[in-house]
Amino acid sequence: MKIAGIDIGGTKISGAVIENGEIISEIIKEKTPYNSQKIIEIVFDIVEKLLNIADIKAIAIATAGAVNNDNSRVIGSTGNLPKDYPDIEFKKIFEEKFNIPCIIENDANAAAFAEYKIGAAKGSQSSITVTLGTGVGGGIILDGKILKGKSGAAGEVGHLMLGIKPERSCTCGEYNCFEAYGSGTGFRRTIQELSSMLPEFKTSILSDKTKEELTTFDVIAGYKNGDEFCKIAYETWENEIIIGLTSLANIFDPDNIVISGGLSGEVNYEKIEKTINDKIVTTPLKILPAKAGNYAGMIGAALLAEDKLV
Amino acid sequence: MKIAGIDIGGTKISGAVIENGEIISEIIKEKTPYNSQKIIEIVFDIVEKLLNIADIKAIAIATAGAVNNDNSRVIGSTGNLPKDYPDIEFKKIFEEKFNIPCIIENDANAAAFAEYKIGAAKGSQSSITVTLGTGVGGGIILDGKILKGKSGAAGEVGHLMLGIKPERSCTCGEYNCFEAYGSGTGFRRTIQELSSMLPEFKTSILSDKTKEELTTFDVIAGYKNGDEFCKIAYETWENEIIIGLTSLANIFDPDNIVISGGLSGEVNYEKIEKTINDKIVTTPLKILPAKAGNYAGMIGAALLAEDKLV
Repeated sequence: MKIAGIDIGGTKISGAVIENGEIISEIIKEKTPYNSQKIIEIVFDIVEKLLNIADIKAIAIATAGAVNNDNSRVIGSTGNLPKDYPDIEFKKIFEEKFNIPCIIENDANAAAFAEYKIGAAKGSQSSITVTLGTGVGGGIILDGKILKGKSGAAGEVGHLMLGIKPERSCTCGEYNCFEAYGSGTGFRRTIQELSSMLPEFKTSILSDKTKEELTTFDVIAGYKNGDEFCKIAYETWENEIIIGLTSLANIFDPDNIVISGGLSGEVNYEKIEKTINDKIVTTPLKILPAKAGNYAGMIGAALLAEDKLV
Repeated sequence: MKIAGIDIGGTKISGAVIENGEIISEIIKEKTPYNSQKIIEIVFDIVEKLLNIADIKAIAIATAGAVNNDNSRVIGSTGNLPKDYPDIEFKKIFEEKFNIPCIIENDANAAAFAEYKIGAAKGSQSSITVTLGTGVGGGIILDGKILKGKSGAAGEVGHLMLGIKPERSCTCGEYNCFEAYGSGTGFRRTIQELSSMLPEFKTSILSDKTKEELTTFDVIAGYKNGDEFCKIAYETWENEIIIGLTSLANIFDPDNIVISGGLSGEVNYEKIEKTINDKIVTTPLKILPAKAGNYAGMIGAALLAEDKLV
């Protein structure tokens, strides 16, 4: 079954033909405009192009923002997308325009579904995919279904609270969220805080940078080269990841937690799996690197469309 | 359908005839011996008594300790119960002895199921029951089913981690668990810590007690009488509850969180519901006091038996 897979992110919109969880066409990419009507027009255009190259049976959209339980539209706020984005009746608009079924799902949920169906969690019963990127996102799959909650907004693992007293502010307006520590942005703040705390801060990787200019990837490189400061900073971040994932393991007793996103390649899986399994009160689980790739969102949406529409 | 409901706790074993979620006989109570064989004998004896007074169709046992996904026996460690307690093949032993179906479920899960079926969460789709007692326990109901995880151990909400650096030790061997703050024991530690931090500690309720002797209920009484120290201590505990429940609301987007246990009567529901709804990134939920009563465990087990066996 060939499906038009679409991914609407804060910076770009992508689309491709997907069959059995594999991308079988070239990938079309466009910049995301800050205008809902223009977003629709771009997606119309991409779907039309995909219809011209394959016998498309459904449209499957992965998007930033929480998606309702009917898989028809976005609810609530959506970060970088236009304010009126939640007003778009995706399912209705696309089904009327193209006369084929359409579903929409949150991109992190869709990516988790892809990991579960064809990726790192394939063959398991319950799996959580945690995305460590600019933010911390997640999707939770229980017995083959995405955990959606009463409105569709469930799975906000980035807003597990890792502290009681207000310490580190989060994009959500609260303090101490997993996202404020585990994300790339959070890691950078950990680096800045630690470097400020050391009166005689020095690191072997500072040759051509001030400490304010240090990036997470500088620090990861320094850690791999045996730099002492970078080791402290990296292990602080690593421990924050461990705390967040330990909470999830104690709540869900899942088969596995899959880590995706820009920082997923920088995680020591063996070490954090062992440490988490030592900490939990539930039973041992696997911590696995994501396998479904950069287009896991649109692939997962397509797999979900097959599940729901066939 | 009349069911023999049994509750095996760390201190006592109770049993009664239950029909449609209501206790319809006197409640038999025995002390819990620290010996697995004797526990079985006591439960045999209780079931025989219940068989003599009603036409029992099933045996439903709520127990301390995580219960496997077959609802046949306990897995892993179980607090105050004998070391070999997980070896007892409850389902097998009781079905062979009495020739009627038997199920066993974790007491916190069973209590959550009772709240969902006949208690505070009746009529909702997804509900979490959090028990604030000596420890913090919980049960999570999603679409009418108890969240069990891969082994049956899921729902350990008391081991959500509310801090990164090791601060307050937990019974599980780790630090900063929700249980170490939200439980009665946790509240007492908060009181002791706060009183030690104040160099000139004084409270209107200390007339006949040293500060080491202060109980949580002293402090709650002092809070209600306008004592300043008690207000600080109570609100610190209240905030810790809010942080734990906010994490759960962000993960599950549930219809409601029900609070049960010895401290559930001391919670300001209106205030914490409002505060949590201001903090979450998901959609507003209800925070509700438990309604299924002190025997929610055995009632929930009986309701589960009806669900599974009918």
